[in-house]
Amino acid sequence: MITGKNYIGKDASAMGNEVLKAYNPTDSSIFPEEFVAATAEEVDAAVNKANSAFQSFKGISYEKRAQFLETIAEEIMALGDALLERASGESGLPVGRFQGERGRTCNQLKMFAAVLRDGSWLDVNIDTAIPDRQPIPKVDLRKMQIPIGPVAVFGASNFPLAFSTAGGDTASALAAGNPVIVKGHEAHLGTNDMVTQAVLRAVEKCNMPDGTFSMVNGGIETGQQLVKHPKVKAVGFTGSLRGGRAIFDLANQRPEPIPVYAEMGSTNPSFLMPDKMASDPEGLANIFANSVALGVGQFCTSPGLLIGIKSAPLNQFIQTLSQALAAKDSVTMLNAKIAKSYYSHRGLAIEQTGVEALGDVNDPGENKGKPLTAKVDGSTFLANPQLHEEIFGPFTLVVACEDITEMLAVAYALSGQLTGTLVAATSDLEAHPEIVDALSTKVGRLLFNGVPTGVEVCHAMQHGGPYPASTDQRTTSVGTAAISRFVRPISYQSWPDSLLPDALKNSNPLGLWRIVDGELTKAAIQ
Amino acid sequence: MITGKNYIGKDASAMGNEVLKAYNPTDSSIFPEEFVAATAEEVDAAVNKANSAFQSFKGISYEKRAQFLETIAEEIMALGDALLERASGESGLPVGRFQGERGRTCNQLKMFAAVLRDGSWLDVNIDTAIPDRQPIPKVDLRKMQIPIGPVAVFGASNFPLAFSTAGGDTASALAAGNPVIVKGHEAHLGTNDMVTQAVLRAVEKCNMPDGTFSMVNGGIETGQQLVKHPKVKAVGFTGSLRGGRAIFDLANQRPEPIPVYAEMGSTNPSFLMPDKMASDPEGLANIFANSVALGVGQFCTSPGLLIGIKSAPLNQFIQTLSQALAAKDSVTMLNAKIAKSYYSHRGLAIEQTGVEALGDVNDPGENKGKPLTAKVDGSTFLANPQLHEEIFGPFTLVVACEDITEMLAVAYALSGQLTGTLVAATSDLEAHPEIVDALSTKVGRLLFNGVPTGVEVCHAMQHGGPYPASTDQRTTSVGTAAISRFVRPISYQSWPDSLLPDALKNSNPLGLWRIVDGELTKAAIQ
Repeated sequence: MITGKNYIGKDASAMGNEVLKAYNPTDSSIFPEEFVAATAEEVDAAVNKANSAFQSFKGISYEKRAQFLETIAEEIMALGDALLERASGESGLPVGRFQGERGRTCNQLKMFAAVLRDGSWLDVNIDTAIPDRQPIPKVDLRKMQIPIGPVAVFGASNFPLAFSTAGGDTASALAAGNPVIVKGHEAHLGTNDMVTQAVLRAVEKCNMPDGTFSMVNGGIETGQQLVKHPKVKAVGFTGSLRGGRAIFDLANQRPEPIPVYAEMGSTNPSFLMPDKMASDPEGLANIFANSVALGVGQFCTSPGLLIGIKSAPLNQFIQTLSQALAAKDSVTMLNAKIAKSYYSHRGLAIEQTGVEALGDVNDPGENKGKPLTAKVDGSTFLANPQLHEEIFGPFTLVVACEDITEMLAVAYALSGQLTGTLVAATSDLEAHPEIVDALSTKVGRLLFNGVPTGVEVCHAMQHGGPYPASTDQRTTSVGTAAISRFVRPISYQSWPDSLLPDALKNSNPLGLWRIVDGELTKAAIQ
Repeated sequence: MITGKNYIGKDASAMGNEVLKAYNPTDSSIFPEEFVAATAEEVDAAVNKANSAFQSFKGISYEKRAQFLETIAEEIMALGDALLERASGESGLPVGRFQGERGRTCNQLKMFAAVLRDGSWLDVNIDTAIPDRQPIPKVDLRKMQIPIGPVAVFGASNFPLAFSTAGGDTASALAAGNPVIVKGHEAHLGTNDMVTQAVLRAVEKCNMPDGTFSMVNGGIETGQQLVKHPKVKAVGFTGSLRGGRAIFDLANQRPEPIPVYAEMGSTNPSFLMPDKMASDPEGLANIFANSVALGVGQFCTSPGLLIGIKSAPLNQFIQTLSQALAAKDSVTMLNAKIAKSYYSHRGLAIEQTGVEALGDVNDPGENKGKPLTAKVDGSTFLANPQLHEEIFGPFTLVVACEDITEMLAVAYALSGQLTGTLVAATSDLEAHPEIVDALSTKVGRLLFNGVPTGVEVCHAMQHGGPYPASTDQRTTSVGTAAISRFVRPISYQSWPDSLLPDALKNSNPLGLWRIVDGELTKAAIQ
């Protein structure tokens, strides 16, 4: 079932000599299949085919595109348990986790089908003509969103389904009408191969143009070729700050710069406010211990920073948290590189002056991530930028501040974040609105209690944030608004009604909500 | 009335030693006032004051912000004829032109006041909680747009009012809730000084925080300091490709990259379709001659490229166009640098093999721009990228194609454009939809007949386009949507209703259209 080939549109291709192998982090075994890295010619062919496909794909009706997305979901389901087992084998994450993630992946595809049928993403604005306006006539102008061209997608190791081959970036780019070229993730080569074939079956079943979807395997160089290709018009990426920034820089250095939507994780600070903390320090500690350890801490929204005020309840919280995390099993991480990086980055943090590790700091080996808590004073944290960096894995740092003033200073000292949480009673927020205000300037999502590790896929989700959480804080990589990353507005001036796109026609044949002369309406224009 | 100082918020400041002088292009005289270039310390002080002001400015009600924008318009009007005369003296453009441009500038400010009262720019999405959802509860999420922080604005020489100190970039950034620091344009130092004082009077009258608006004079280095300042969060720019790209590159090389909205002009191709061309070649030629010569060709949307198919009507069109342009007076251009650049770039174009200038190619001197037509074959145009570049001034190049196939090749060979025009009968579009399709991938605004030089300020305007027309084709610098450049989304999760921003409260106190659980509504949430 796994071919190990690249896919230039529907055509399997393996022209290169470099072979990649898939790795099982649980026992460090190597899967048998050989995956052939794409040559520069294959990358070029994939992008050219995508560009040719764009000419017809962008004109296919929204309804047909919606059916295509739904068919991708069906084809992914049709891969059955084999997909779940392979994803588990390549990531060390349990099969059960992939039942959930597969559901999310398919729901995302269906959600964008619904987005296409709803049509609000087209953002139609119409200003009708006023021929007798003085001193000059007012022309008729009609604006809508259109796709931009081939999109390169780089998936994430921590979500081999939902943020990879047919994940949110691919779904939203296709929904918007753009062909997609996926750079297969090296940490789940087989999973990617299977999903690629599922997508290509949907392309065929739905009669989408050949080149609507392509996939190339390879390493950094393959990725660079994609990003630099003149016919690639945008990039979606989920991963490390280092990787995201490198792609961002490369894209901006092109003769024609293109947008890079890189979601690069964050420390997701939680502010433990005094009234709330006093009410149930142990209960809160257990909630956070579970969130920190969830998925072996391998979430972009894992709570890596807990900021409290020195007090007996905070001491109790720290004690319970550190014990709860110490008591958790060491669990296999996504791959050897990530496990190694976890211990080296964590090691660097806990070696800093003033940082106290609250548990066993040894690496148990076998790619296993051992949860750990550490603590540090607010003043030490403020003085040491090293402690502000994300550590990907089941680790959290408690910052114990002298008072609210120091806590506020910590809030202002933070870099951009995907999320920020106020662990607070209403009375805390009323007493200290300045903390909320400070945190709101740093984050894409602001939580009142709860933990940030759940990311709901919906209209109102913002998954993105000020740099370095993402390279474009104006956009989200989760939820319906993700489609807006891959479109641009065009205005038609004085255009004959019969030749306008349906979305802009007087009769409003798509039944869209439109802003006509400043008023929102579904009515036809007389 | 003109002070020649920088304004660090309300405080006039002139710490530096470098003095700039304003220039009158009509007679190359120098105005008497001395303008003191800002020191690095003054630039830093302006940005720091803007950042402090941001903390309170962003929290000021939309209604008060709207009143502030209206007051700026009033204060600009209160400058009276002195402003129009100064703008005319510094630009060579007639006083009458500035009556129109001042009206547009004030209307833009009032339009953004209306945008603030309407509230649709907040793009509110609310997904309510489903506590008993299986397998996990659905949380309450509420998303809206918030301002991003201090914005640096670089005005344009060709619109000293509407695209400068209190122009569209400033109006939209302030409307969104961001303090603005203007880099005063060296080509209209006095005009900028007067408008700066008008804006500062509005800041004072409306009790806006000190630092909501600042202005620094200086050259390239001053601009670079602004773009590199860590507390500047976005840049608005209108001007040349070279200038815009330099700012874009600088902003992307920052440790924290920031968006640059640079509108850099284009050649604005018009496709002269055969049926239409046959109907009235002389009439069309006169319309285009007037558009090319309008404002001495100093518009971002000036039609610099006219693509037709070899035929008797095209010959007639070319003859009438070239004669009409040759018959027009040479008129003073904006400044000596722009006049010099016009003749050097035009000279480079007409020296290319296969290009035939159809008129007097001499520079009459005294900064005057002499209109000129040239023509070239389609194949020569396709083979020579030099001919694709914008020439800022009253020049247009007619590209004579062998047939529709060659015309289509020209359409595909073009770089990104602000506008593209089909000079066409409906029958032309029906016969050649491929031309429309090709052009639509290249432009922000697609015109059916007419000329591109008018830019309506409204909801449905798109003034921006694929690179190199602008650095961010997803945005417009004209019209209500311009506000979206200076905001970002934030989601509130499980937030207590009483502590939510008004836009997100259950009761919908602002009476906004909101998407609640996927449905557009103005209703309160029960």
